[in-house]
Amino acid sequence: MADNGGNVENNQGDAPISKKAQKKAQKEAEKAAKKAERQAEQAAEAEAEAGDDFAKDLYGNYPLIQSQNKIERKIYRVEELTADKIDQKVWIRARLHTSRSKGKQCFLVLRQQQFNCQGLLCVSDKVSKPMVKFAANITKESIVDVEGVIAAVPQPIESCTQKDVELHIEQIFVVSPAEPRLPLQIDDAARAEGKDDDDSSLATVGQDVRLDNRVLDLRTTTNQAIFRLEAGVVQEFRAAMKKRDFVELQIPKIISAASEGGANVFTVSYFKNNAYLAQSPQLYKQMGIAADFERVFTIGAVFRAEDSNTHRHLCEFVGLDMEMAFKYHYHEALDVIGSVFNDIFRGLRDNFQTEIQTVRRQFPSEDFKFLDPPLRLEWPEGIKMLRDAGIEIDDLEDLSTPNEKFLGRLVKEKYDTDFYILDKFPLCIRPFYTMPDPNNPQYSNSYDCFMRGEEIMSGAQRVHDSKFLLERAKHHNIDIEKIKAYIDAFRYGAPPHAGGGIGLERVTMLYLGLDNIRKTSLFPRDPKRLTP
Amino acid sequence: MADNGGNVENNQGDAPISKKAQKKAQKEAEKAAKKAERQAEQAAEAEAEAGDDFAKDLYGNYPLIQSQNKIERKIYRVEELTADKIDQKVWIRARLHTSRSKGKQCFLVLRQQQFNCQGLLCVSDKVSKPMVKFAANITKESIVDVEGVIAAVPQPIESCTQKDVELHIEQIFVVSPAEPRLPLQIDDAARAEGKDDDDSSLATVGQDVRLDNRVLDLRTTTNQAIFRLEAGVVQEFRAAMKKRDFVELQIPKIISAASEGGANVFTVSYFKNNAYLAQSPQLYKQMGIAADFERVFTIGAVFRAEDSNTHRHLCEFVGLDMEMAFKYHYHEALDVIGSVFNDIFRGLRDNFQTEIQTVRRQFPSEDFKFLDPPLRLEWPEGIKMLRDAGIEIDDLEDLSTPNEKFLGRLVKEKYDTDFYILDKFPLCIRPFYTMPDPNNPQYSNSYDCFMRGEEIMSGAQRVHDSKFLLERAKHHNIDIEKIKAYIDAFRYGAPPHAGGGIGLERVTMLYLGLDNIRKTSLFPRDPKRLTP
Repeated sequence: MADNGGNVENNQGDAPISKKAQKKAQKEAEKAAKKAERQAEQAAEAEAEAGDDFAKDLYGNYPLIQSQNKIERKIYRVEELTADKIDQKVWIRARLHTSRSKGKQCFLVLRQQQFNCQGLLCVSDKVSKPMVKFAANITKESIVDVEGVIAAVPQPIESCTQKDVELHIEQIFVVSPAEPRLPLQIDDAARAEGKDDDDSSLATVGQDVRLDNRVLDLRTTTNQAIFRLEAGVVQEFRAAMKKRDFVELQIPKIISAASEGGANVFTVSYFKNNAYLAQSPQLYKQMGIAADFERVFTIGAVFRAEDSNTHRHLCEFVGLDMEMAFKYHYHEALDVIGSVFNDIFRGLRDNFQTEIQTVRRQFPSEDFKFLDPPLRLEWPEGIKMLRDAGIEIDDLEDLSTPNEKFLGRLVKEKYDTDFYILDKFPLCIRPFYTMPDPNNPQYSNSYDCFMRGEEIMSGAQRVHDSKFLLERAKHHNIDIEKIKAYIDAFRYGAPPHAGGGIGLERVTMLYLGLDNIRKTSLFPRDPKRLTP
Repeated sequence: MADNGGNVENNQGDAPISKKAQKKAQKEAEKAAKKAERQAEQAAEAEAEAGDDFAKDLYGNYPLIQSQNKIERKIYRVEELTADKIDQKVWIRARLHTSRSKGKQCFLVLRQQQFNCQGLLCVSDKVSKPMVKFAANITKESIVDVEGVIAAVPQPIESCTQKDVELHIEQIFVVSPAEPRLPLQIDDAARAEGKDDDDSSLATVGQDVRLDNRVLDLRTTTNQAIFRLEAGVVQEFRAAMKKRDFVELQIPKIISAASEGGANVFTVSYFKNNAYLAQSPQLYKQMGIAADFERVFTIGAVFRAEDSNTHRHLCEFVGLDMEMAFKYHYHEALDVIGSVFNDIFRGLRDNFQTEIQTVRRQFPSEDFKFLDPPLRLEWPEGIKMLRDAGIEIDDLEDLSTPNEKFLGRLVKEKYDTDFYILDKFPLCIRPFYTMPDPNNPQYSNSYDCFMRGEEIMSGAQRVHDSKFLLERAKHHNIDIEKIKAYIDAFRYGAPPHAGGGIGLERVTMLYLGLDNIRKTSLFPRDPKRLTP
């Protein structure tokens, strides 16, 4: 390091030097020498530490895991760190959520999905000073392997899900490092929005920033819970279907003709021709009924090229669709639909409380209420309730979104339920394949289901007679040529049948009382968003 | 009717009439009069019969079922008609499969999905002559409600699934009539193909006629069984996933960039821009892993714009995709994949024997054999087996379809299994995101699974480090801009992970030993078929 000092002098070169300049140079040289000395000291100290470091094999960065070795090691989950395991030494793999170093200590919050715990490194005979430094410098969101002893804490750790214990860390390795600058902070993304308390000055993350950085956004405990619950809706729906002997069919998404009129349909280049993305699996599941499957369901993507930028429209969503042959009256099907929904609601309530409570910490909502059997109203009753509450509405006029929501509120007040079925829709506002009411041709054998006042399923008895279907299609000015395969499906005997299509993301959104369907779509597609 | 005779004369009009012509006219008039008389007689007879008909309320056509009435009636299923119910009177609803009338008797075969039974109407004090006539005239494939008494039969009815009983019909109503001319006969469509026996002269139905009339074709007991078993594959896959704590994710089908190079991708008009149909959910399920879901699966449509007209390619098929974080070695994931397949095979074997046996009656196949744990070979072993059998093949050359099938046969001979995993594929024939083998850079941590010698799953450990991923993408000349969101997903810490995608239709086809994937796709899409 003395060489450095020498250089300072040499740098003055051959130029004539004043006394003042000489003195200055002297001072600088002294300064530099002192600095060099300090650096040398620090380096020596570090070297000494490293050489000495009794803990040097107990921390560090793994090389890229390319499956070099098979390691037999029991690894616990964060949620398993509980008070009954105090004094046990365990390995966990988790994300470094946050860290805070304080003298000879470093506190870490380790996160795994919906769960987190506190970890602590403290200089001791097991943990060296460089080890604590290393831990303190690990970037947030890095994945780490940690070994530690589960210890009791004097008072509950309110900021963690594992409140009663902390982990006294004895080994720590980085499995996969995160870049230091995160496009969003998980804590900000997880903060409850619009709370009128002291925290209102703290940052939250806007919808678009979230969606632009969805992989990070999805790591919040809230999102982990939302999408686990959404998977739960699918699981409960399927279990309800299986219990009732429905067969799952796989239905094509690419279709040859825009079957429901041609508006709002995406066009696909299909080799040398055009094709379309199905706006609903309905025509195909009906063909499944005409093909003798009797009770069918299908789960899959549904596409709508609607330029609707609302809180509840997506251009691609997941349909939970069902269709069943019935014997004499479509209420046989409607009874099944009602009980399927109740199965789903019971399943969510009984099996997903952790998720529900987790979501509520960020987005408060009230318990979802439902009746058994579900409330069923007929259209004229709904209209009457609206009129009695001062809304002007015609007998056969479709419900606007505000009226739909308002009716939901009225129903909630009167019947104390967040779910109900509205039966007997006016024929004129339903598709051509809807069976007219035999008693009043202005109405139809069709229904919608509502959750917290918003429509989440539409369904009907379908016309199962090809001649009558043709008549209804002509009445609606449908291009008959384009739906020939559909009409033909009913020429060779078809049982009377009814069904409906449920929007998955809407069910999740409304069950959890969320305000935007983009919160319940993993990678939402709308007119303005197609990435990531 | 006398008016008609008169008209013949009047038709001669005012023209002059020759004797000959007069005679002819006379004769015709007489003829017409006689015909009219006969008709009148028949009508009277019919009327008399009808008037007399003690059974007239016991048969007929239902009006269109528009849900006029709620009828409480226990309706049995055809498969429930068994010898333990002899002398019971039951209602069933079924299709008229065939009918044969013989004097005062009419035999019906009544079909419901995979099951059928014999029905018999016989003129008696309960069944009138007009009733038997009515039944004999019901068109095949019509849906009927039938009430009858379950009776023992002197010898088993070999042509029906319900061999030990027949139904002595006392009421019969047509629920939904089929048009008399069917585009294909269900019996022809259900006949075993290519059997070298006496029946080889009987008609079978070609693939295109079947698919053009898919709703009828699907009614064969074989197709009812195939698609029930296919639903079973999905169900068993899902159960296997749930058991292992995989979360089901819903992954978009419309994507902004052709992520895997741009070949073979369908283009969609997305408002004012172009978008694409996802060729695989893989990039998104990996994002699910980077987003902390740890173990994910997804079931959905996958699109390939390949102009391949083979027995095993479709332009739209169903992917059963899974992806999981592992701790140290991708074999942790491969072990899971192997046991998931074995769960599926066990589930099919144990829960779908009826379906398997039903399909075999038309398409014979041998039991599907598998080992527990599944056989796992490494690439060099596979190449050696081929070479030992006389095939010339380079170390790192991809398997052609004939070599793939041949290797399957060799494996079956040597190990007696229809399922195996081939591990350690050459790196050069795998996509850019495949993790290279740490011990030999010519190979990779990737694998395929095979059933009866054909590939049904492809998978790998993926590169989970963004810098290395970028390097690999550049090496493959991928347009980095187009996969930015994908690479970015790994910048903020990602666990090592591996997974794979299973083709549903291929699994069903190969499990059942079928020869064409169009037999296991409900409404297949290929370069030449987009309907129905």
